[in-house]
Amino acid sequence: MKENSYLLPLYKRLDLGFVKGKKSVLFDENEKDYIDFASGVGVNSLGYANKKVLKTINKQAKRVLHTSNIYHIKPQEKCAKRIVNLSGFDMKCFFCNSGAEANESAIKLARKYGNTAFETPKYKIITIKNSFHGRTIATLKATAQEDKHKYFAPFPEGFVYANDIKEAISLIDDSTVAVMLELIQGEGGIFMQDVLLVKELEKVLKEKKLLLIIDEVQTGVYRSGEFLISQHFGIKPDIVTLAKGLASGIPIGVMMTSLKDVFTFGDHGSTFGGNFLSTATCNKVLKILEKYSDSGKLKQNIKFFDDYLAFFINKYPNLFLQKNGFGFMQGLVLKDEKKLNEIINSSLKNGLLVLKSGKNIIRFLPPIIISKKEMIKGFNRFEEVLENLI
Amino acid sequence: MKENSYLLPLYKRLDLGFVKGKKSVLFDENEKDYIDFASGVGVNSLGYANKKVLKTINKQAKRVLHTSNIYHIKPQEKCAKRIVNLSGFDMKCFFCNSGAEANESAIKLARKYGNTAFETPKYKIITIKNSFHGRTIATLKATAQEDKHKYFAPFPEGFVYANDIKEAISLIDDSTVAVMLELIQGEGGIFMQDVLLVKELEKVLKEKKLLLIIDEVQTGVYRSGEFLISQHFGIKPDIVTLAKGLASGIPIGVMMTSLKDVFTFGDHGSTFGGNFLSTATCNKVLKILEKYSDSGKLKQNIKFFDDYLAFFINKYPNLFLQKNGFGFMQGLVLKDEKKLNEIINSSLKNGLLVLKSGKNIIRFLPPIIISKKEMIKGFNRFEEVLENLI
Repeated sequence: MKENSYLLPLYKRLDLGFVKGKKSVLFDENEKDYIDFASGVGVNSLGYANKKVLKTINKQAKRVLHTSNIYHIKPQEKCAKRIVNLSGFDMKCFFCNSGAEANESAIKLARKYGNTAFETPKYKIITIKNSFHGRTIATLKATAQEDKHKYFAPFPEGFVYANDIKEAISLIDDSTVAVMLELIQGEGGIFMQDVLLVKELEKVLKEKKLLLIIDEVQTGVYRSGEFLISQHFGIKPDIVTLAKGLASGIPIGVMMTSLKDVFTFGDHGSTFGGNFLSTATCNKVLKILEKYSDSGKLKQNIKFFDDYLAFFINKYPNLFLQKNGFGFMQGLVLKDEKKLNEIINSSLKNGLLVLKSGKNIIRFLPPIIISKKEMIKGFNRFEEVLENLI
Repeated sequence: MKENSYLLPLYKRLDLGFVKGKKSVLFDENEKDYIDFASGVGVNSLGYANKKVLKTINKQAKRVLHTSNIYHIKPQEKCAKRIVNLSGFDMKCFFCNSGAEANESAIKLARKYGNTAFETPKYKIITIKNSFHGRTIATLKATAQEDKHKYFAPFPEGFVYANDIKEAISLIDDSTVAVMLELIQGEGGIFMQDVLLVKELEKVLKEKKLLLIIDEVQTGVYRSGEFLISQHFGIKPDIVTLAKGLASGIPIGVMMTSLKDVFTFGDHGSTFGGNFLSTATCNKVLKILEKYSDSGKLKQNIKFFDDYLAFFINKYPNLFLQKNGFGFMQGLVLKDEKKLNEIINSSLKNGLLVLKSGKNIIRFLPPIIISKKEMIKGFNRFEEVLENLI
């Protein structure tokens, strides 16, 4: 399959495309099946062809998909309530169309707060090395990876990069308004932050009335076992952003915040954001996931998944250094980064989808509802790949 | 209806919400019907509950809604081909999730070109007074409305504002890389640019190897009678952005360009952008609209619509100054801006949805497929409102 001549060459596409899926399995044109440990980079939290989601989409499409936000949109109101309740935080929501747009919203909100709530304006936002916050100009600059800032200058000033949370604390100065971070870095090596350090950061920021922004675009929506990984960390952020897993692939993003009165009419908005289709679907996805989590099955399955990855670490000590991450967002760290592409491509040939992260990490992001049976099948295929490699 | 306590107060919502629609008519909870001359701010180009679109959404949802762009996505390839063919331009596409993201993509591309293709880097982008290019930090700064730049500094440098196209030409200097404009300003008063001036601008830019970026987020997808209003103007832009009318309310954006080799792997990307659901739906919407346009019906209906608006100008010379815009994107300019809210609210009460633009303009953006019968019904309701007003 050649790259289509009508698409800009922005992706290194694998030589493969899918035509349908069922639960956590995808099928290509030849009906070959692939166990999906990637879920469209964390999007397909319910896997594929979930009947309840189908029914919701179909029902909503028959009625109305979209109206402007100048009218009330009932599913948007319901969805906001559900998200806030699941978070346990006293917050309000803004709906947009992607993780990048959610992070743009967070940066705008933090800056309005910094530029209006203090005697001398504060505008600096500290982010953490190897973070990834999006592809718009501002979120790309917020992404603390200098090699991503080559071509698109001038960027907005006001982003400061810290090597780690300790350094972030030390970099807070009179013009700092917020620290923004992922609790597990999705693109940056599935690196999980230390709970105590994050709590220390939270404390320092609260004392200074500065903001803690948690980017949960990849960690949110039950990927950690909790609705938000912030809940697992036991912190209360001022702003949380969500996107990928919310609506089974319908583009959606959410910025939620305890700063309920900083944004006022006209400060921000979206044409598509929060429309009937995306929020009705999001509502249904979250309802299903909440029930699934409450049943205890999610935590059981994460334990099963976790034990399996530990088994690989133990069985192949020459291949793997360690495992990173948490819940259904984990990575196996290779000793030899040259093996990364070989393992990913051989897995593909053997009917298994896994992702990369950083230079030497095999990233696992299965659908949240993946079954034990599907996991066993997938890990068996993975083991075959490793056996052929050593 | 009170603003929901779980939503940030960013919109001044009218006291109304809809539960369903059919063709160009929406219905509220009490089954009251509203002729829709607003189409969700240009999004619902096929109106509501189009059976072919429903079938496409349902069929695609049953198979697969989303996979990552690291795999081939057939509907994305088909959709890019269709968009390029409809435009008549020799271009390639990038898919994202909104008009703001499409314009971010355009700005990034222009800057990479400016920063790499010349001996001394060029980075300045000239935009036109009262433009609207989006709500992200960079597109908000590209929006030439100073009152929108109050709270969110620091903004990226490199945007230059011209009062009009003549001034834009005069402002081009050694660090200018592009001029970006809407051929009809959607938010800025339905103001249509002069064809000859735009052609003059195109010529000047081509001679200097600089870029013409046309923001067709609101004017595109047959709103002008042609697929792109750029085609009506007879120009060949270097970059075109599209969004609103593409996919019946499923969030989508497109940046298309004749610069096929400036962006390379890793320069840009999107998780949701171009996925199965949005592009399969977009494909179907465009197929229906192309057929409709080819039948001659679209142009006939636009003529009918245009004549009706001219009738109001003639009948109420004390109310209206003139009409602005073109095709299915027009505005009636009020002599007295204080009447704007009254007319919009009275229309609402009388079962008609119209929008604002600027301070004194009633904006009409009906679904592209609106029928003569629906137009007559809508304009009758509008006339009743005006009769009560004078």
